Amino acid sequence: MKALRFTNLKLSSANVPRPEPGDEALVRVTLSGICNTDLEIVRGYAGFEGTIGHEFVGIVEEAPDAPELVGKRVVGEINAGCGECETCLAGDPRHCPKRSVLGIVGRDGAHAEYLRLPSRNLLVVPDAVSDEQAVFAEPLAAAFRISEQVTIEPETKVAVIGDGKLGLLCAMSLGRKSENMTLIGKHPEKMAIANDFCNGTAMPDAIGREMIRNFDVVVEASGSESGFLTAVDLVRPRGKIVLKSTFNGTPSWPASRVVVDEITVVGSRCGRFGPALDLLAAGKVPVQRLISETLPLSQGVEAMARAAAPARRRQPVPCVPRCRGPAAG
Amino acid sequence: MKALRFTNLKLSSANVPRPEPGDEALVRVTLSGICNTDLEIVRGYAGFEGTIGHEFVGIVEEAPDAPELVGKRVVGEINAGCGECETCLAGDPRHCPKRSVLGIVGRDGAHAEYLRLPSRNLLVVPDAVSDEQAVFAEPLAAAFRISEQVTIEPETKVAVIGDGKLGLLCAMSLGRKSENMTLIGKHPEKMAIANDFCNGTAMPDAIGREMIRNFDVVVEASGSESGFLTAVDLVRPRGKIVLKSTFNGTPSWPASRVVVDEITVVGSRCGRFGPALDLLAAGKVPVQRLISETLPLSQGVEAMARAAAPARRRQPVPCVPRCRGPAAG
Repeated sequence: MKALRFTNLKLSSANVPRPEPGDEALVRVTLSGICNTDLEIVRGYAGFEGTIGHEFVGIVEEAPDAPELVGKRVVGEINAGCGECETCLAGDPRHCPKRSVLGIVGRDGAHAEYLRLPSRNLLVVPDAVSDEQAVFAEPLAAAFRISEQVTIEPETKVAVIGDGKLGLLCAMSLGRKSENMTLIGKHPEKMAIANDFCNGTAMPDAIGREMIRNFDVVVEASGSESGFLTAVDLVRPRGKIVLKSTFNGTPSWPASRVVVDEITVVGSRCGRFGPALDLLAAGKVPVQRLISETLPLSQGVEAMARAAAPARRRQPVPCVPRCRGPAAG
Repeated sequence: MKALRFTNLKLSSANVPRPEPGDEALVRVTLSGICNTDLEIVRGYAGFEGTIGHEFVGIVEEAPDAPELVGKRVVGEINAGCGECETCLAGDPRHCPKRSVLGIVGRDGAHAEYLRLPSRNLLVVPDAVSDEQAVFAEPLAAAFRISEQVTIEPETKVAVIGDGKLGLLCAMSLGRKSENMTLIGKHPEKMAIANDFCNGTAMPDAIGREMIRNFDVVVEASGSESGFLTAVDLVRPRGKIVLKSTFNGTPSWPASRVVVDEITVVGSRCGRFGPALDLLAAGKVPVQRLISETLPLSQGVEAMARAAAPARRRQPVPCVPRCRGPAAG
């Protein structure tokens, strides 16, 4: 089968054997999405080698321990735990110390014709949710995770930094909870996508004095050192910064300001898929607008290059190219 | 009067006019303590110029708006708010945006014969508390602040990184709440001071594998980049790192690990003096053991140099030299 592989520090489209499901489920991928983490992996993040990709929707072809799933359209939680440790037994493999993570840690990923995952990781996609929506279940769950970690009330002043896919999904999901949300980005045409969910947007170099130290919660979703500095500028004393982006390297940070202003920095990663699918089924989040292009899997290298390129002026919805698996193409 | 001044990037003992109290209180300092923040200021932290020092005990000589304080032995909260903003009106000037801070921001400090502070900042020291104990009220309050921000139960696994004065005070105050406290330091003779409060100590290069990702709460009180890295190693997924030390410069940090392990980093600064004085009055915290030497104020430059020097092997209690004001000398 075709797969988009990162091996020997090189990204390539390759033909590899179809995965043997063993006691896991075999899923035929119909659509996969490129995440910023994919781009970071290609820059060296996580030291991963293999098939990249972890955002997908597909059809279950085999599932030895869950035959009722065969033929169903599914999305999948990407952390596969050992099933035996304390955190797995509590029903949450996301922090299992022995976990593999689809396309990120020790497990081939979703930019391929087929993938395997434990059947317990799979969730059936409601009919009301299209493939183009369902492929956003994973990043939307990650965005929604924030509201499980930090209290967001209608009056909570929230700023989201970053107008990439993750930033826009954060704005969309948190903007449903806060009536005081501001999106900080560099691309007016991207920020426009989240307009219905914000009561303000700003470019980083046009942040007004009245915004400084004004926000209860600031979500850093740009994955950049300067984004974190902006977050420290925006958050009020004793406020919270949610760190949402993973990125390669060790940036510097104004640790003393975190101490002096008693800021709380909350690391935030994967979320539960259930609430994300509910949001998608209710048509509450226009994720389709985040698709800039859809390319066949055979053009995966090109798709990654386009996703990594700075937003182009002529493209009205310049977010994330998607790899469409040829089986659905 | 004599004062220890940092001006034009130079530390010196100087003769300066006695402060005019105006509508504030005038305090004759009997004992002042050297804090790591003093050392950082001399390295450029906070851009402060003037008389340094913020840990003190003294006698009130004038207090126009609180005559009952005159002649009383006091310690003082170091943040002086504007008295008019939201945070000040709520009774807490520690985050007043216009605050001055004794010996740190816009206000001459405590390594001097006299200082001024608003009388509302002063707390009378109980008779049961000696000067040598009372001078620790400020850093002990800062250490105690942690337990107001993070839940510490008897079963909470806590590690404190750093065996300087602040680290030892954190160990002493948190070790009264947790029955599972470990102190990480580089000086066995210092760590021994906190032995009664810990159920384990370790050098950073002898941290056992069983300690990795094992702690619910890790307090970073070393003020070093490597200390934060150790904290990230020790804290369990979804655990908390309390950032306690201020320091000059912008260190680097493994931000992605904070995200992936969903660590919460809690900035922690000044605490309330009341609980600290209660602890001291109850004789629960042997702070006197943290005094390595007491020098007259006229030797303040030398005292700072000794405080900044690496711990000396021959000194059994090698913590923090104290400046003794000559009025009490």
